[in-house]
Amino acid sequence: MFVNDPEGVDKEIVEEEAKHLRKVLNTFTLYKSHALTSNNRRRTDYYALPERHKALIPDYLTKLNKVDHAISKNYHVLKQILSDGKLFVGDEYKGSSNNDNDDKEQVTEYDMDKLRSTIKQFVREWAIEGKPERDATYKPLLDALNEFFKDVSKEERAPIRVLVPGAGLGRLAFDIVQQGFSCQGNEFSFYMLLASHFILNRIERVHQHEIYPFIHSFSNIVSSDDQLKPIFIPDILPSSIPPDSNFSMVAGDFVEVYGEEQHIEKWDCIVTCFFIDTAKNILEYIEIFHRILKPGGLWINIGPLLYHYENSPGEMSIELSLDQVKCAIKETGFLFQDEKIINTTYTSNPNGMLKYVYECSFWTCVKQ
Amino acid sequence: MFVNDPEGVDKEIVEEEAKHLRKVLNTFTLYKSHALTSNNRRRTDYYALPERHKALIPDYLTKLNKVDHAISKNYHVLKQILSDGKLFVGDEYKGSSNNDNDDKEQVTEYDMDKLRSTIKQFVREWAIEGKPERDATYKPLLDALNEFFKDVSKEERAPIRVLVPGAGLGRLAFDIVQQGFSCQGNEFSFYMLLASHFILNRIERVHQHEIYPFIHSFSNIVSSDDQLKPIFIPDILPSSIPPDSNFSMVAGDFVEVYGEEQHIEKWDCIVTCFFIDTAKNILEYIEIFHRILKPGGLWINIGPLLYHYENSPGEMSIELSLDQVKCAIKETGFLFQDEKIINTTYTSNPNGMLKYVYECSFWTCVKQ
Repeated sequence: MFVNDPEGVDKEIVEEEAKHLRKVLNTFTLYKSHALTSNNRRRTDYYALPERHKALIPDYLTKLNKVDHAISKNYHVLKQILSDGKLFVGDEYKGSSNNDNDDKEQVTEYDMDKLRSTIKQFVREWAIEGKPERDATYKPLLDALNEFFKDVSKEERAPIRVLVPGAGLGRLAFDIVQQGFSCQGNEFSFYMLLASHFILNRIERVHQHEIYPFIHSFSNIVSSDDQLKPIFIPDILPSSIPPDSNFSMVAGDFVEVYGEEQHIEKWDCIVTCFFIDTAKNILEYIEIFHRILKPGGLWINIGPLLYHYENSPGEMSIELSLDQVKCAIKETGFLFQDEKIINTTYTSNPNGMLKYVYECSFWTCVKQ
Repeated sequence: MFVNDPEGVDKEIVEEEAKHLRKVLNTFTLYKSHALTSNNRRRTDYYALPERHKALIPDYLTKLNKVDHAISKNYHVLKQILSDGKLFVGDEYKGSSNNDNDDKEQVTEYDMDKLRSTIKQFVREWAIEGKPERDATYKPLLDALNEFFKDVSKEERAPIRVLVPGAGLGRLAFDIVQQGFSCQGNEFSFYMLLASHFILNRIERVHQHEIYPFIHSFSNIVSSDDQLKPIFIPDILPSSIPPDSNFSMVAGDFVEVYGEEQHIEKWDCIVTCFFIDTAKNILEYIEIFHRILKPGGLWINIGPLLYHYENSPGEMSIELSLDQVKCAIKETGFLFQDEKIINTTYTSNPNGMLKYVYECSFWTCVKQ
């Protein structure tokens, strides 16, 4: 289900990618010891309390022990992703470094946070608990897609090619395929690529795996039971797509992959969900969307404008207001159809006391 | 209006504090050049764009120039806080370092972020734009306070002593004094202390100062005009309290200051707003609240549980769920009266596309 094209890629880029991938794999490897160490810090702090304070929180140690157990459960899943991931990436990614320790030392809190976000992403995309977020975002996208192609029956949609840049763990692309379309997901993050390969290709039954996504922060928790509740993935069998359906995932940077000539006017529809703000230069994304769509093709978008590179030293970052984005889209040659604001969280703990609420801009527009 | 007691304080602590304060003052000093550099990074990135991209965003440079101007306006206010702050802190804080450059090098993005948060705090506490957040949080606190002391007329409330730990820029304490109570605010952060001293003691008229709190991030902005709208502070004259009212602000760590014997059973009421999660050990806070309240005294709280020290290496941090916090409060000897959940943002950009919504726990409880 995965398509890669390592031919003609600069050797330096291949080595840079290999280095990055080793770091991602190391982050998976070190998850358990890292998480247990964090939890053990809590244990040490508890032991340092005066006895009268300990007496006020009689269930504290029991909870820490349960979290240790949940960390082991998470690692059980991560190990399977990891072993599969090592096979999936193949020899060309092994690169020149033979010194594992060098790489392991480079794993930072930032890397570990990416991995913890990946665990939460499973909930958003592949658990029943993520349904409210999927209903808020995927549903309007799918509705717009079905509306635009309402004259083509489900059985006749295979020739309609839909592209999902920033496909994450593949659920949105999967849902689009379920509607009869051909769909290609594109993803840049190795964390997401390893995890999506696992969920799309290695699942045998619904609810096969048990994960604990909310055990890594003890802040804004109403009850310990909520925090320790297992989440079962997947909620639907990823292999349950029609046998002749055309579903692929492509690894790589969107601009590099789809900036290629072979994609010009090859797509009927582009669906972006929490994607456009991953750009270093959002104008480049808009330009490529326009170039690779067929004339009259549709772009559907939902998401905020949380520019990923705004605070990354040494990286270009063009940060436009929503008004400026829309002007640029029109100037590039799109005609807006539907526009609205949709409020939603993103990989939020449904029982937590803090919610990041995105007031997303949703639009459909057509290539003129 | 400020009370400080440097007597009997360990010399090492004084030197540590002096060092920290120099860093805070340096952060104020370096604000303008730091913010202009960030904005200039955007200018450089714009110039690097191909001409066809520049043509899509014709107003981009104009906006950057307006942001430069707004940075200067902010700095105009910060300079006044700074010069006043240098006087306010007195000789004892000057410490032993004469090497300004050493200190200036220590200012980090983290420090600058604290300063930017202080600018936003002015909006929350002292601007008309902050009224929705104040209505959501201060109003239920004031209502509970007035209800508890409803049998005492406004004119007879001066002997009733209310304490506000984590007083920030002093607005809540000010509002409590407006209701006739005596009120002492306590604050630990030098950023807040410098800014609250300025707003409480150096203001001559309503809307005297113009600030631009939302110019430091270009993410999640709907329109540039929103982002560049000036905010006028204060919305009310801080000196407009009754002439015989008893209002003070005390600098220092809550546990250090109020753990002292002199405070035992001296307070009629404690009002905490977004404060209890600033504890390294929340049980210590609860214990002190109980000890310093008079028998039958009232504690009113609103806030989330975003434990400030959860991810601070080398610091103790006890992170309880809301259920555990409430159990510990009962065990310590409080009787809960009112309990509810109140949703609110905190120093949020009202026009932004991302809101951090806190599902706050509100309670009143009485010392038994």
